[in-house]
Amino acid sequence: MRVFNFAAGPATLPLPVLEQVQAELPDWQASGMSVMEVSHRSKAFIRVAEQAESDLRELLAIPAGYHVLFLQGGATGQFAAIPLNLAAPGATVDYVNTGSWSKKAIVEARRYCARVNIAADAGGVYNSVPEERTWQRTPDAAYLHYTPNETIGGVAFPFIPDSGGVPLVADFSSAILSEPVNVARFGLIYAGAQKNIGPAGLVIVIVREELAGRARDVTPSIWDYRQMAADGSMSNTPPTFSWYVAGLVFQWLKAGGGLAAMGRRNRDKAARLHAAIDGSAFYRNPVPEPFRSIMNVPFTLATPGLDERFLKEAEAAGLTNLAGHRSVGGMRASIYNAMPPEGVDALIAFMREFERRHG
Amino acid sequence: MRVFNFAAGPATLPLPVLEQVQAELPDWQASGMSVMEVSHRSKAFIRVAEQAESDLRELLAIPAGYHVLFLQGGATGQFAAIPLNLAAPGATVDYVNTGSWSKKAIVEARRYCARVNIAADAGGVYNSVPEERTWQRTPDAAYLHYTPNETIGGVAFPFIPDSGGVPLVADFSSAILSEPVNVARFGLIYAGAQKNIGPAGLVIVIVREELAGRARDVTPSIWDYRQMAADGSMSNTPPTFSWYVAGLVFQWLKAGGGLAAMGRRNRDKAARLHAAIDGSAFYRNPVPEPFRSIMNVPFTLATPGLDERFLKEAEAAGLTNLAGHRSVGGMRASIYNAMPPEGVDALIAFMREFERRHG
Repeated sequence: MRVFNFAAGPATLPLPVLEQVQAELPDWQASGMSVMEVSHRSKAFIRVAEQAESDLRELLAIPAGYHVLFLQGGATGQFAAIPLNLAAPGATVDYVNTGSWSKKAIVEARRYCARVNIAADAGGVYNSVPEERTWQRTPDAAYLHYTPNETIGGVAFPFIPDSGGVPLVADFSSAILSEPVNVARFGLIYAGAQKNIGPAGLVIVIVREELAGRARDVTPSIWDYRQMAADGSMSNTPPTFSWYVAGLVFQWLKAGGGLAAMGRRNRDKAARLHAAIDGSAFYRNPVPEPFRSIMNVPFTLATPGLDERFLKEAEAAGLTNLAGHRSVGGMRASIYNAMPPEGVDALIAFMREFERRHG
Repeated sequence: MRVFNFAAGPATLPLPVLEQVQAELPDWQASGMSVMEVSHRSKAFIRVAEQAESDLRELLAIPAGYHVLFLQGGATGQFAAIPLNLAAPGATVDYVNTGSWSKKAIVEARRYCARVNIAADAGGVYNSVPEERTWQRTPDAAYLHYTPNETIGGVAFPFIPDSGGVPLVADFSSAILSEPVNVARFGLIYAGAQKNIGPAGLVIVIVREELAGRARDVTPSIWDYRQMAADGSMSNTPPTFSWYVAGLVFQWLKAGGGLAAMGRRNRDKAARLHAAIDGSAFYRNPVPEPFRSIMNVPFTLATPGLDERFLKEAEAAGLTNLAGHRSVGGMRASIYNAMPPEGVDALIAFMREFERRHG
């Protein structure tokens, strides 16, 4: 029996996509091979790769003048690749710290940049975004980096920062494709696949063309944006299976009405879960309203001693992976695109029933 | 209908493995999720990861004192990661050049090391290995790098170099698991997955523990061997699906009798194909006998004008991806572990029939 999987990533995938993957194993498109066995340079795979890129461009309405790259190494790899590609060693780079993933990006950037300026720091409990007017930005920074959605804290930016002439760089790993976004505001968007795109092992980089071409000499060639763009993300063998599944997810999104429809569905799912938490004295969401993520919803129980029991009973009810990140505890429901509204409804019903019995 | 797929990589996988993957989609181990959707930190996935490592250690008889890492970025990523982890910027590193992949490793190493010494260069047509006594090695090199099996040229080392006290580093991408190997001779072995291990997007690194821990400050954290070893290859989200499939391949190898049995099977497959080529005046293998790969068998037709026809008729006969690499032309049959002897027999029969009609 299929469960409702609230894992933060790797995360639930659309069932129709999984069923298509299954149906096409081990004979894909009547080729007599599985898609995993097909050369990345074959016409059949190139079609998959190009269609995926084209569908992603359509879904996100990516303007002309951007490269779309399908790379390896995850967002954590990009924490290194971004300074290597966009900043000279002596340049200043600006980072906004709103939680665990911002912090990891900052730690890695310090290996490549002598001057990493923390333009703003949410500090302490990391459940909000500092007001933009308080940020201490560097006027000539090589870029300004932020994390629109903090997966662990469940904290989302209610605005796109105004970076002026400084290229804006964003780790969209847990927010990509969750709703429409104005890509033109960004110099670079990157996202690990394992939340809203597909299997782990793929990271997508959307980068303004003029920013690709400044890579330092020591940039690993698999992360040289200009070279990878010239080679169609195939300077080396790409993660073909993940790319293929990503393409199926993009087609599923298009069939569902694109990101406008998905954004409405996601906002509705999140609003119902937030309302259920707020309407109860037993559950509590530590994130104040304007900064709440529509993808990752953390909550705590009035009696933390019941956490284990909650998780156990939830799992028995087919609601899995609701434990908060080991660094913060409590609960977290990740409700990415592939989580159907029925999953959120089932969670809400379970929470009410659990409260009735234990509250 | 399943074909015999002679692609060089991504390459054919064992059919029982593909069938198991298919059967377990979308409900893996009665979890109600596919393996792609399971957290890498879940008990269920950790079991998969640990079992895969343990099976690989058993298959290769890896001695104590080696880390086994499951990383991203492919062998091409390791071309950068190896100098970053094993060599100070001013150190000399030795490379042996026996073809396309050696050359790529050398080009990348030059980005990180001022002194890259080419200890030996097969030169020209790259169809042999220079005699070891002619090599110009650096006594205190940080390491000696070579490519035991050149996938494009079909050239294999008939010996393991004697590197003395210098750590021996080898790109085993197209030879790993094809037969037993004395791992103790090596400081580091690495292999992209997409030939003998599993889907593209995974690279395995087997590194002597004392060599992990010298990484330069600018080493991307996803490639810091010591840190990755400490984190069980999970400093960041690993390519979970590829790791899972690799584990199934390892189990398939064990069930088939391990590497001794696989080595005999591979030598037999290669010997029959080589004999068919040598016994014909129509086909020719450009690689002299002692340097012939048992994994990648290049051959040419007496009439190059028939190449297209050969490929087309072979494909119609269910024998696919026999074109040589675009850089060298001709034909190449990659006959990795997952290519059954029946596939080689079918190829030989087709070649004879083609020669009869066109020779």
